[in-house]
Amino acid sequence: MPELRRDPIVGRWVIIATERAGRPSDFTHPSPRLPEVLCPFCPGQEDKTPREVYVQGRPPASAPNGPGWKVRVVPNRFPALKIEGALDRKAEGIYDLMNGVGAHEVVVETPEHLKQLKDLTDQEVTEVLFAFKARILDLRNDHRFHYILLFKNQGHLAGASLEHAHSQLIALPVTPRQVQDEIDGARRHFEHRERCIFCDIVAQERKDRARLVFENEDFVAFAPWAPRSPFETWIVPKRHESNFEAEPKERLGQCAQALRSTLRRLSAGLSDPPFNFILHSNPLRDAPSQSYHWHIEVMPALTHVAGFEWGSGFHINPVPPEEAAEFLRKVIV
Amino acid sequence: MPELRRDPIVGRWVIIATERAGRPSDFTHPSPRLPEVLCPFCPGQEDKTPREVYVQGRPPASAPNGPGWKVRVVPNRFPALKIEGALDRKAEGIYDLMNGVGAHEVVVETPEHLKQLKDLTDQEVTEVLFAFKARILDLRNDHRFHYILLFKNQGHLAGASLEHAHSQLIALPVTPRQVQDEIDGARRHFEHRERCIFCDIVAQERKDRARLVFENEDFVAFAPWAPRSPFETWIVPKRHESNFEAEPKERLGQCAQALRSTLRRLSAGLSDPPFNFILHSNPLRDAPSQSYHWHIEVMPALTHVAGFEWGSGFHINPVPPEEAAEFLRKVIV
Repeated sequence: MPELRRDPIVGRWVIIATERAGRPSDFTHPSPRLPEVLCPFCPGQEDKTPREVYVQGRPPASAPNGPGWKVRVVPNRFPALKIEGALDRKAEGIYDLMNGVGAHEVVVETPEHLKQLKDLTDQEVTEVLFAFKARILDLRNDHRFHYILLFKNQGHLAGASLEHAHSQLIALPVTPRQVQDEIDGARRHFEHRERCIFCDIVAQERKDRARLVFENEDFVAFAPWAPRSPFETWIVPKRHESNFEAEPKERLGQCAQALRSTLRRLSAGLSDPPFNFILHSNPLRDAPSQSYHWHIEVMPALTHVAGFEWGSGFHINPVPPEEAAEFLRKVIV
Repeated sequence: MPELRRDPIVGRWVIIATERAGRPSDFTHPSPRLPEVLCPFCPGQEDKTPREVYVQGRPPASAPNGPGWKVRVVPNRFPALKIEGALDRKAEGIYDLMNGVGAHEVVVETPEHLKQLKDLTDQEVTEVLFAFKARILDLRNDHRFHYILLFKNQGHLAGASLEHAHSQLIALPVTPRQVQDEIDGARRHFEHRERCIFCDIVAQERKDRARLVFENEDFVAFAPWAPRSPFETWIVPKRHESNFEAEPKERLGQCAQALRSTLRRLSAGLSDPPFNFILHSNPLRDAPSQSYHWHIEVMPALTHVAGFEWGSGFHINPVPPEEAAEFLRKVIV
């Protein structure tokens, strides 16, 4: 059983995923996972994955776990957490741990092996976001889970091990430290000003325009004021909403357009860079919040993040966000 | 002039180092820095660096900025921050920024090009730590600086651009977010229990022994309870002390022995992995602290840190610290 362990000083939780391990000697010659002969995410290979938990676009008469789908969600074959069991919180001296209970799922974004998310239509990207929403709505019924970390690693340097377009979600019994920091910071702003800080940011970005990358009726994409890495871009709804899963499908369509435009600009402008995105949303057990505001953070992996940067939380970024945004605005997509 | 910009939500500071930049198009084909024909850190090449600010071991009669030194500290040729100027804190709408004022120095750890820090003697490593102390004591006289981030990147994958053994320090007008989180967490522990949490951790690690890697009279090296990466190892003084620069030379000798033993174990056991270490010490403008406790965090760069991990602060570690510590204890050095 994997364990969730809490750092006693800063309160950061870490999954100690013993079953994924190798022995220490495996680390002396790191070996990339061998390419699979047949991609397990391609239509016709559905038996290579655990049974699907959600599917979009399958014709009414077709059987589950066969071809015909447009978006397919399956449990991860190598899950970081286990879905069965109780949390069994306990102490070990001054330390805290609990069983590594959680869900780890893969969202296969398209049946087409050679397409990336940016290559899909706005409608198809909307279906992917709708799959995210459907899985969050289902998993939040499980009261063991406090947060769903939903993210995409695209490209080997950004941590992807399979090239077929996919994103992942990890349902956790705890809230990740950096999300909690955001929630706490947003709450402090609200206590002083009775305004959402993200709404304030959206207003200033729309007024300044220097960091704006894309805007439609409901969403803005912009380079944040203090980006950790070159071309970091946030996609934020204009209307206040703390929970991604509360958005109706029309608004997810607007979000899909902003996300797709951002990814196409990054790809065309920067030669298809590896990237990650992370959905930041209100924790599952919290009431809808006036101070927190869901958004997506897209981070291209262009510069090497030196260990001192992720170890200290102090980043050096060689590209001012105003230059990054101007460059991305001018990319023809 | 580089800028220090504050994220308005979580309070994280980022250096926007415009002068190191390239243009956005430079990121489409990332080019490693070309190897230098002559290493600028080797004896005889002293004119390839800015003039030295500290030197150890030079014979009394010899001239500065020539050969004969054992440890040499020089300003970074490509500094992330500028030493001249006022901070000039200001707002831009809801955002905060200040001039990127600070020091960025390189500690050349040995004149011998082919030796790494682990290859030096205990006495030589002590001289390196003594150079760290001397530079901190000098820079803390400059009241613009609040924190000195002292770190080492060894190996290309850990962010090193030159192979000659060196570490770096960045004197900052702000305290890095993760250090502040540690200070705040340690203070909360102290408020409840009137004990230092690091002292509690040292006591439990010495009692449990399962995560212990090395111990001498004054220091312990151990795998922390919730390590972010495989074989992460902390080196902590047994006696409470908040400030690294307050340690007398004898205790730095004991620290050097613990650091060198840890690095030799990592190198011999894991085929000389790339790694980072970061010195965590009490901020310069704070009084000596009963609740905070300086230490060194060593992080081998064995697994790829996926973007979602550093973007969420949520880590998945495939090697339990008890296994990592047992492996490192058994390495013959």
